[in-house]
Amino acid sequence: MKVLVVYWHPEPQSFNGAMFRRAIESLEAEGHEVKTSDLHEMAFNPVSGRHNFTSEHDGTFFKQQLEEMHATEVDGFSAEIEAELEKLEWSDLVIFQFPLWWFGLPAMLKGWVDRVFAMGKVYGGGRFYDDGVFKGKRAMLSVTMGGPEDAYVKGGWNGDLDAILRPVHRGVLAFTGFSVLAPQKVFGPARMTQQEREAELDDYASRLATIFDEAPIQVGDY
Amino acid sequence: MKVLVVYWHPEPQSFNGAMFRRAIESLEAEGHEVKTSDLHEMAFNPVSGRHNFTSEHDGTFFKQQLEEMHATEVDGFSAEIEAELEKLEWSDLVIFQFPLWWFGLPAMLKGWVDRVFAMGKVYGGGRFYDDGVFKGKRAMLSVTMGGPEDAYVKGGWNGDLDAILRPVHRGVLAFTGFSVLAPQKVFGPARMTQQEREAELDDYASRLATIFDEAPIQVGDY
Repeated sequence: MKVLVVYWHPEPQSFNGAMFRRAIESLEAEGHEVKTSDLHEMAFNPVSGRHNFTSEHDGTFFKQQLEEMHATEVDGFSAEIEAELEKLEWSDLVIFQFPLWWFGLPAMLKGWVDRVFAMGKVYGGGRFYDDGVFKGKRAMLSVTMGGPEDAYVKGGWNGDLDAILRPVHRGVLAFTGFSVLAPQKVFGPARMTQQEREAELDDYASRLATIFDEAPIQVGDY
Repeated sequence: MKVLVVYWHPEPQSFNGAMFRRAIESLEAEGHEVKTSDLHEMAFNPVSGRHNFTSEHDGTFFKQQLEEMHATEVDGFSAEIEAELEKLEWSDLVIFQFPLWWFGLPAMLKGWVDRVFAMGKVYGGGRFYDDGVFKGKRAMLSVTMGGPEDAYVKGGWNGDLDAILRPVHRGVLAFTGFSVLAPQKVFGPARMTQQEREAELDDYASRLATIFDEAPIQVGDY
């Protein structure tokens, strides 16, 4: 199968970096094809604007969705957006590897979504949720939390992690038609021993070996 | 009172831009002092990294929170971060003006949080939630949605808007001690008549006239 891993962390030596590299290695060992978007390495620009496009629909008022619809018609996306769109379209499974920052995607990864998930290409014209463009594809968040697991439960300091991840699960992934797999969660890797971190990496590799056998999760309707 | 309005939209002529300008005008008319962070105008860089700092704690492994703790001790934040921290500390009320993109903050505004909400300055050492650094300050999201209101209710296309905003309400604002005011919500301004948009701006101005009399909302524990 074809897997795209989209990854951001500002430190390549981080545990997130190790998870990213382990995913590539494990998936390739299973015979899958892997493409990556290492956003830090790419120095991807997360800011949306006219530089998303080579085409121009309205030069006097910038409405991104209208520019995206026009660019879809005239093949007017900038090379960096086009390259990401092609990887998305190519993939059977998309993995996001990132640290949870402020209960959400770090800006770089959010900006990748803001710019690449373009109207016309990725949604629009009634194509969303069960009729979404990416219907038949799977997606999974692989996410690290700074705090311990008991801080991320209902009644805990931060509340239920499912509720925290739900805007991404539903608003980004399910919205565009992906079947959402259960998130891969690691709590407090910075406070683990090296042995514990290696056990987490091994767990992840084991899971990835049979990832295409997994049933998707239901994305909550809060 | 002192109000900071943090705003991002890629088109200054947008309805978000009009909401931003109307807030400034209304608050000043009430005798409040207003400072702004117009992130598009500032071309703010939303990407975190060593450029957040003039100091360096560990040159071999970049762990942002440790660099933030160190910078707090040695006055080592870059000038652009320091300027935003000073505005935050100065304010009695912080307003975020933005379009909801992919069920969350647009990357620019998320990156402003990622970079400016620094450990040591804004949280850490047991200072969070009810003991948060910004205890006594208020914060409010002023947000526009592309879709209609009935798409943002439980059982609707996107589910309950409170659940969508909750990671920002709880994970960004309540976490750092802010009392959270009810969000100002406008649905589908692009599909409104000019008269309807002006009515929304008037409603917002009316609300802002007595904003400091409002009781905060409870941030849900999903």
